[in-house]
Amino acid sequence: MERRISWSAARLALALAGMATALAAEGGAGAAGPLLGFRAEAAAAQRAREAELDARVSPAEMREWMRRLTSRPHHLGSEWGRANAEWMRELFASWGYEARIERFDVLFPVPLERSLEMTAPTYFRARLEEPALTADATSGQRTEQLPTYNAYSIDGAVEGELVYVNYGVPADYEELAQRGIDVRGKIALARYGGSWRGIKPKVAAEHGAVGCIIFSDPAGDGYREGDPYPEGGWRGRESVQRGSVAEMPIHAGDPLTPGRPAVDGVERLPLSRAATLTKVPVLPISYGDAEPLLRALGGPMAPEAWRGGLPLPYRLGPGPARVKLAVRFSWSLAPALDVIAVLPGAELPDEWVLRGNHHDAWVNGATDPISGMVALLAEAKAVGELAAAGRRPRRTLVYAAWDGEEPGLLGSSEWAEAHADELRQKAVAYVNTDSLSRGVLALAGSHSLERLVNEVAREVADPETGVPLLERARAAAIAAGDAERRKEVRARADLAISALGSGSDFTPFLQHLGLASLNVDTGGQDQYGQYHSIYDSFDHYARFMDPELAYVAAAAKVAGRITLRLADAEVLPFTLDRAAATIGGYVRELAELEERLRAESEERERLLAERSLELAADPRLTFVPPPALGRVPFLDQAALKNAAELFEKAAARFEAARAGAEARGLAPPQRDELNRFLRGFERRLTTERGLPGRPWYRHQIYAPGLYTGYGVKTLPAAREAMELRRWDEANAELRALAELLESARAAVDEMSAKLEAES
Amino acid sequence: MERRISWSAARLALALAGMATALAAEGGAGAAGPLLGFRAEAAAAQRAREAELDARVSPAEMREWMRRLTSRPHHLGSEWGRANAEWMRELFASWGYEARIERFDVLFPVPLERSLEMTAPTYFRARLEEPALTADATSGQRTEQLPTYNAYSIDGAVEGELVYVNYGVPADYEELAQRGIDVRGKIALARYGGSWRGIKPKVAAEHGAVGCIIFSDPAGDGYREGDPYPEGGWRGRESVQRGSVAEMPIHAGDPLTPGRPAVDGVERLPLSRAATLTKVPVLPISYGDAEPLLRALGGPMAPEAWRGGLPLPYRLGPGPARVKLAVRFSWSLAPALDVIAVLPGAELPDEWVLRGNHHDAWVNGATDPISGMVALLAEAKAVGELAAAGRRPRRTLVYAAWDGEEPGLLGSSEWAEAHADELRQKAVAYVNTDSLSRGVLALAGSHSLERLVNEVAREVADPETGVPLLERARAAAIAAGDAERRKEVRARADLAISALGSGSDFTPFLQHLGLASLNVDTGGQDQYGQYHSIYDSFDHYARFMDPELAYVAAAAKVAGRITLRLADAEVLPFTLDRAAATIGGYVRELAELEERLRAESEERERLLAERSLELAADPRLTFVPPPALGRVPFLDQAALKNAAELFEKAAARFEAARAGAEARGLAPPQRDELNRFLRGFERRLTTERGLPGRPWYRHQIYAPGLYTGYGVKTLPAAREAMELRRWDEANAELRALAELLESARAAVDEMSAKLEAES
Repeated sequence: MERRISWSAARLALALAGMATALAAEGGAGAAGPLLGFRAEAAAAQRAREAELDARVSPAEMREWMRRLTSRPHHLGSEWGRANAEWMRELFASWGYEARIERFDVLFPVPLERSLEMTAPTYFRARLEEPALTADATSGQRTEQLPTYNAYSIDGAVEGELVYVNYGVPADYEELAQRGIDVRGKIALARYGGSWRGIKPKVAAEHGAVGCIIFSDPAGDGYREGDPYPEGGWRGRESVQRGSVAEMPIHAGDPLTPGRPAVDGVERLPLSRAATLTKVPVLPISYGDAEPLLRALGGPMAPEAWRGGLPLPYRLGPGPARVKLAVRFSWSLAPALDVIAVLPGAELPDEWVLRGNHHDAWVNGATDPISGMVALLAEAKAVGELAAAGRRPRRTLVYAAWDGEEPGLLGSSEWAEAHADELRQKAVAYVNTDSLSRGVLALAGSHSLERLVNEVAREVADPETGVPLLERARAAAIAAGDAERRKEVRARADLAISALGSGSDFTPFLQHLGLASLNVDTGGQDQYGQYHSIYDSFDHYARFMDPELAYVAAAAKVAGRITLRLADAEVLPFTLDRAAATIGGYVRELAELEERLRAESEERERLLAERSLELAADPRLTFVPPPALGRVPFLDQAALKNAAELFEKAAARFEAARAGAEARGLAPPQRDELNRFLRGFERRLTTERGLPGRPWYRHQIYAPGLYTGYGVKTLPAAREAMELRRWDEANAELRALAELLESARAAVDEMSAKLEAES
Repeated sequence: MERRISWSAARLALALAGMATALAAEGGAGAAGPLLGFRAEAAAAQRAREAELDARVSPAEMREWMRRLTSRPHHLGSEWGRANAEWMRELFASWGYEARIERFDVLFPVPLERSLEMTAPTYFRARLEEPALTADATSGQRTEQLPTYNAYSIDGAVEGELVYVNYGVPADYEELAQRGIDVRGKIALARYGGSWRGIKPKVAAEHGAVGCIIFSDPAGDGYREGDPYPEGGWRGRESVQRGSVAEMPIHAGDPLTPGRPAVDGVERLPLSRAATLTKVPVLPISYGDAEPLLRALGGPMAPEAWRGGLPLPYRLGPGPARVKLAVRFSWSLAPALDVIAVLPGAELPDEWVLRGNHHDAWVNGATDPISGMVALLAEAKAVGELAAAGRRPRRTLVYAAWDGEEPGLLGSSEWAEAHADELRQKAVAYVNTDSLSRGVLALAGSHSLERLVNEVAREVADPETGVPLLERARAAAIAAGDAERRKEVRARADLAISALGSGSDFTPFLQHLGLASLNVDTGGQDQYGQYHSIYDSFDHYARFMDPELAYVAAAAKVAGRITLRLADAEVLPFTLDRAAATIGGYVRELAELEERLRAESEERERLLAERSLELAADPRLTFVPPPALGRVPFLDQAALKNAAELFEKAAARFEAARAGAEARGLAPPQRDELNRFLRGFERRLTTERGLPGRPWYRHQIYAPGLYTGYGVKTLPAAREAMELRRWDEANAELRALAELLESARAAVDEMSAKLEAES
């Protein structure tokens, strides 16, 4: 079937009208204003450099790089992964970089055995294979493809009745419990979505399940979204989402060397002590393989919201479906080959701006990660050419193509651990990309970079509408928002950036090292139904993701500008007021959370006392009232509220002092001290002891959630203690957070005083 | 497959515990209190009578009646419909009633031709037939079954491209318009749900469609809810929902004789002037027949919320699917045979309490309508036996088994029109039932009866939990409610009853004649996937709806009590304070509606000015910005607010005056005057001119919505004018409503003054 795309006359007119705006955005009116951290003449020069960057970002070239990099499977440890690394190292070198490959030897299980059989009420053997498609040129490279599996599942052969657990998050088990269903000794059948996949086996095991199967429901990224591949871009009947299920919220990187680089001679944990492996065997399957299992389930109907897109009644079980699940892996080390390309700074070689994207894929990985990888390459090439033409950035640029991101941010984490001390001294910020496609710009990261990011997003045009990316992102936030969100967005001329959880290589830099980080992303108007399957291919990308690589180019212009401004600014473009205001908002959320938890406790008590749920339930179905939640004590929030408010005031004072000093002109030693302070700001939001039970995560403002995975938890120590209703811990963490902010405030005030004294 | 029902130990304990409460509810503690409208000794006697009613309601007997009545198809005009009517007339007569059959000759189209073919992109001919099932004994009675069709579709043979219009309500066409899709000259494919079915062809025609097809999506009452019949009770692949598509919100009853009884010699409109026929041909289909059509649609993806349960991408079209739709009917008259059974009152024979349920079905109709019909028969039998034993009710009871409800409330409407004058003089109230099944009691109707209804619901036990039906209904309202609803329910010891829209035989009594009416319903814990199909059968009912007819019995006890209390009360159990408070709430809703409409206008203006929707849309898909809504003027709500508040005060004064008078004891002439006043109260809420554009509907508080059908619109004249943004009309209707309430208030005050004067 032909692709259904119609450019309406109206849209065309808009696009044409947009071209004028685009000219304004890129080098026109908007380009005449000041730049954060630059003096007027330097700003003009910087803009000229950026115009050259734009001119050098070539979609055609990126497309050819994409074709090359995706032409064979290139997962961690693969032949083509090594070839890609070497090819990229040579490219970087040819552009004038000091380019090297850094190798780490990391645990990377590869399947020796995978089987899933239903033994009752009828027999069925899951196929566990994705067929080659003639419409997809690389889908038939069977011998090089990793089979469908979840990395860091333990070995195991288990058998038991099946229970459908929806997304497999804690709330789902509460619903099951209300129906008298538990998973002890059983195998949990979870659908993808609703949480990061690694949460599903974790929570299943916590509830006593002996195994976990994860399927791609067609209501997720299958036919419910559009035509399955290859007619459309969406997931077909046999397509499987691979992926890591390591307990990444405990730590990222090699499971055997937490906090240490996986290099020769390092102490490696025995497998039995690796904390991030699953507790039960896990296997991902397609909806083709899931359908007979779901059809064979008995028991009560699943709650309304749990019913997916397969044409059958979704039941919970347990049984009569019984399955045998067996997985066995080769638990060997694989070489993670990070490509590191350095362009020493012309003036400040010991200040490093980092820009990274991973190069490993689960299979051919055109969207994930090559779309982002080719953007990075285009930026690096342009910057290299500018440097060769005499316009070398002031600070050192480090471009990184990480290996082993898919199994667990391995290449980036090991590298960050290997260079931790040097990075703490030298690194300024880390800018990440990953999958890019048509749609809307999404920006997330450290809020000290929020102004910089907005400045850039205002100056780069959206390729299809022609308006600035920022304007389109604001429009999208308004269009998708409820009344409250619309009000929030309209109240500002820029756009708040999101906090980062995890899911890509920024994690070791931001959350382990405390380095200010950003993630640049575009997408949402694609047909991304091939995530982590053999069909995430060049053919798929070129038809359904970003055929002209126009959004890849836009992202390169954004990430390139951010990187260059960080590298060239006289005063680093960090602003503390936005960070402090954002943290102030999170602190208010904790107060609201306390109230919400209290209201939930009280409401639960009321429901139990009046027996409403019990009486409303169908008497012929099992109903077990939910447990009482217990009283919520009033928490010690005052110190944190005080600290947050004072921190906000201190940040405002600092910005005024900085502006005054910049206006007066900073002497080089003062400027250097200011830059050192700004560079070190993010680390003041971390602690040595890290988060409760997961010391690898040191950032106290942003972390991946223990029960959400990729999803962020802000102020994680206190927030998660509250969510888990651990009141003593919550109080302790609220106080600790207050102390952290208080200490950061003191440092900010000290810097402000110095800036003020210089007047 | 076996039915999956498990009585958990916990539920069993609850049920046992409930038996004690049940005893209390029925004749125990709760039964000792006062009864609305009865003096203490009369209340005790009434309760004794009700205990006998309970004892005489026999599930086994109702089950045999159900088996008999459903043993063959019994639609309007059918042989078995006539046999049932005669059989019931004989039953009533045998129980001591003056029983007769009243006949009306009503327009009833029956299909001569039905065909639906897809002519492009591939050929497909819809089956349009429901196969017999061996598990369903009556499903094979082919020669007597009405085929699958929508009654009062016009004749027509049309051909055109198909457009998927979701539920086919006005908001759906706004979504289509934003995607640049219109249905002019095309055929609308709508799914059942989201509105009454007759709205779909009406709105399709208003937008220029030339035909309308309505399908049962499996996400409605099919496999998404549970196993299809006969394994479970839900709708299977070939099952079709028949049903009327007459424009019932214009008027109910015979399309040829609006406002007049369809008897010999009446003036009948020519077909061409019948206002309630559709404007385009319509045909209902199964999801088996819909699937190839949906699969053949191209165009953009339907909005997320429009995607149903079929395993395919729901697209909007138009085309490439083209269909030919042809329907032709025999437009003849059929005899509607109402069974009317009268038990003259022992003391007040000229005051009539009406109790009705329809007897016609679309096919065998076990749930709809026989479950309610047998409840009515059981009540009538018990009352007849009590009368024979010397306890004849004070007022006259009129039991009615209506014919022709399915095509358009024909039997009840024609009867109400035929006896309008007498009913206005004599009728006290009308109590309706229709489909009944396992679940929770739902009460709806005139709010002057809210206290009576609650009094009764507190005294009848839920069969499976043993607690009073009221307690369970309150629990269900809490369990399903959001925080605001929970608060509302908990603030009262009883439960507010709902307002009635349409969908059963109360409409002519309540909304045309202005007679206080109630609808008694139980359900929600059933597997009702056979609505209006050949599988709504005894076999289906006995497995999936209410196998022991326990809820049918409970409903009979409720409706029986209400009927008897209305018949026996010394002072009629109407209370004006609840009615006035409810109307006061509706008036406040109109003020909120005005604000909401204003906010929508302003928000739309903002969105258009900032171009957010446009910029957020996918530039490769057509996007047409929604039109500006225009300014919302400030409406003349003051008079209505004043009138509503004064009406509430007057009602409170009346209740105090009545209570005082009752405490002192009312002399018979005063009591009679009070009862006359109470009997006439509901009609004070009606006007002769009726609602704008639909004079048949005279009630100014409750009406079926012009664009919702069964769904109620309260204060309909003003509310719908506002919703349609007809501001002059809205102002006029707000003022008219104020006058109506003011005039009702004057009458109430006059009655209060009399009651007070008598002290």
